[in-house]
Amino acid sequence: MKALKGNIVHTPEFGKLETYEQHYIIEDQGKVVSITPELSSEYQGIEVIDYGDQLIIPSFVDIHLHAPQYGNIGMGLDLPLLPWLKTYTFPEEAKYHKESYAKKMYQQLLRDLYNFGTLRSCVFSSLHADGTIELMNIFDQAGLSAYIGKVNMDRNSNEEYVEVSAKESIADTLKVLDAFSSVSERIKPILTPRFIPTCTDELMIMIGKLAQSRDLAIQTHLNENLDEIEWVKELAPDSTGYLNAYERHGSLIPHRTILAHSIYNKDDELDIMADQQLYVGHCPSSNVNLMSGVAKVKQMIKRGIPVGLGSDIAAGDSLNMLDNMKDSIKASKLLSFYDGDESDVITFDEAFFLATRGGGSFFGNTGSFVPGATFDALIIDDSSYRINKLSLAERLEMLIYRGDDRQIVERYLDGNLLKVPFENK
Amino acid sequence: MKALKGNIVHTPEFGKLETYEQHYIIEDQGKVVSITPELSSEYQGIEVIDYGDQLIIPSFVDIHLHAPQYGNIGMGLDLPLLPWLKTYTFPEEAKYHKESYAKKMYQQLLRDLYNFGTLRSCVFSSLHADGTIELMNIFDQAGLSAYIGKVNMDRNSNEEYVEVSAKESIADTLKVLDAFSSVSERIKPILTPRFIPTCTDELMIMIGKLAQSRDLAIQTHLNENLDEIEWVKELAPDSTGYLNAYERHGSLIPHRTILAHSIYNKDDELDIMADQQLYVGHCPSSNVNLMSGVAKVKQMIKRGIPVGLGSDIAAGDSLNMLDNMKDSIKASKLLSFYDGDESDVITFDEAFFLATRGGGSFFGNTGSFVPGATFDALIIDDSSYRINKLSLAERLEMLIYRGDDRQIVERYLDGNLLKVPFENK
Repeated sequence: MKALKGNIVHTPEFGKLETYEQHYIIEDQGKVVSITPELSSEYQGIEVIDYGDQLIIPSFVDIHLHAPQYGNIGMGLDLPLLPWLKTYTFPEEAKYHKESYAKKMYQQLLRDLYNFGTLRSCVFSSLHADGTIELMNIFDQAGLSAYIGKVNMDRNSNEEYVEVSAKESIADTLKVLDAFSSVSERIKPILTPRFIPTCTDELMIMIGKLAQSRDLAIQTHLNENLDEIEWVKELAPDSTGYLNAYERHGSLIPHRTILAHSIYNKDDELDIMADQQLYVGHCPSSNVNLMSGVAKVKQMIKRGIPVGLGSDIAAGDSLNMLDNMKDSIKASKLLSFYDGDESDVITFDEAFFLATRGGGSFFGNTGSFVPGATFDALIIDDSSYRINKLSLAERLEMLIYRGDDRQIVERYLDGNLLKVPFENK
Repeated sequence: MKALKGNIVHTPEFGKLETYEQHYIIEDQGKVVSITPELSSEYQGIEVIDYGDQLIIPSFVDIHLHAPQYGNIGMGLDLPLLPWLKTYTFPEEAKYHKESYAKKMYQQLLRDLYNFGTLRSCVFSSLHADGTIELMNIFDQAGLSAYIGKVNMDRNSNEEYVEVSAKESIADTLKVLDAFSSVSERIKPILTPRFIPTCTDELMIMIGKLAQSRDLAIQTHLNENLDEIEWVKELAPDSTGYLNAYERHGSLIPHRTILAHSIYNKDDELDIMADQQLYVGHCPSSNVNLMSGVAKVKQMIKRGIPVGLGSDIAAGDSLNMLDNMKDSIKASKLLSFYDGDESDVITFDEAFFLATRGGGSFFGNTGSFVPGATFDALIIDDSSYRINKLSLAERLEMLIYRGDDRQIVERYLDGNLLKVPFENK
């Protein structure tokens, strides 16, 4: 049991920012006990870490990230989704059959996730079972938390980067699932069919059965791009829509499914997502870079659909969730400017929710400092650029716009202070 | 005379990126002589600085920046232009009557301009003559180059931050103009009427006369926001448009005028701007943050209008021109997405042009490495994130998306290596 003292800021609900100047946050066995202005007699004598005038905020959660695209960040962002995949993405992911390459790149990825304070993420690996197991081990060694899935894809890719059959794809998936018993519980499995265009019906049926029988989480893509949506119509002529192309094979698991992008969802799709509490992985940087469009996030949240923020590396151009928060605000402002609906604008505290509690709830009670939540926190020293006297809310807004990893001085996950991973390259 | 060796990248014309692997760039008396693969016999024996595998690029130019808004970066970006000015901006600028505040803030600004490699800028100061002279001195001490103007504004501001008469405004302007004789020629004067809403006709007439009689450069705002444009119509009922409200008072100086924003320019206004070579200060970050709209930059460039990139601190949220390049690309992609015109998309090399040669030509022959250009350069070490083998163009794109001030290892202005300014706060 310990207490951290400082300026505490979190957002337990969308639209609700709570700030506590010079308060204590009490932790016990990795969970938040309470936030209190004074230590009452029952806590006398516990360890107190005084962070002075620094901020204490929940650590960040990245709900949609392609680990084997990390080497491509900030490159080739001049193409729309489908040609971008074939030209830049599949050839890069194909390199991960080589273990030494995977290890080198994934260690760099984990160092950067640590640097940027993203302590939990939902991650697409490559097609490779061994590379995926390597990624699990590297997450484990770094001490960070993730849902990790080997990608399934048995059609419509480049020749050198596709699975030869649904059966082989599932066999490799089972191999990866077995390996989770040898890593920490912080690292969890998630089924990862890439998207309808690259998965045969046979494969989707097998994935649906696996998800149901083992009660597994699942992550995929939905309604990202207009050309993609047309293609899905051709590939799944018996489906009533893109979401239904997943649903009919049993691969939508209530509360445990992430549907990245979800820009062009129809009303009936949104109803199902609200009803089954399927998560949207909102990826504004990616959606702008590939000119996919801008998701109407606030309308989805009003319907009761859970939404988290995703970097979508490498269609998104930054692993830093502060950048992704900025991008979510900016994209929503241009959406609102062009559609004339002021209620589409995401404010800075709402963006902060998306990057913490929004995606955090996929991991259980994480992403905020409500009692009982996992104690995942970042300590922020913003003294280098802060000159005027500001409120805590203003300091948070300034952090989102001006801050970077240099402001993050310490990181806690499940109550434990983390150390820099893989210091010797 | 000296030669720098490394990987040279610049863009002498919009749409034309030139890359030179392991070349020499030869400098003499502050100017570029040539770029050459080998040192010919005439250059044997000159100093050679070998930057190995690093990039050598032109330094950045910020064509529109409000120095006394620096303390407000990343704050209060939830309002449109006119209420934003009254609520956040005018009260902050008003603080600069105090010399100690101005000195402290301007030193921090100059340190950051240096850090971010923005070695030339076109700067709005506050209303205060003494604060403006302080800013000139601080630019001079830092060794950077700028056009600096005391803001003129004699109506429609907050009570505590407005000039009492046009005459007083001009008297203070003359005081500032006199002070330029005591600073380096790197620091140049520019007349700075804020915009039509805050300048009486009497003041605009006096500024027009002053500009004409002394052949001075001039900077102001144009067609930024729809409410502002309506207001100008009311305030200047005899003008044929917003641009004409400046033109009729003689305050458009061919080749030497910067019109920030210029989002909603009409055809006749664009014709005049092309004809007189009036510069657009394109400020995408600001225009998105305040939901002003997105300027059709490429259409303006096709008409022959010169365009530079501006951070527009503090409506823009970053002084870092890499961020502003990213924002120019992203805003242009959403513009194109919503208006359906693919030719609006700004590519990374075009954004790089805007941030170097685009604004640089306002300073004369600066912003590129063509023979005769001022030798203004940044040395870029991108080894920290670069793993795969990339072309120089790919390395530039990755720098724009992934880089920050940590990649800039050395800075040259007019051929001189710059030192960190104001190291002891």
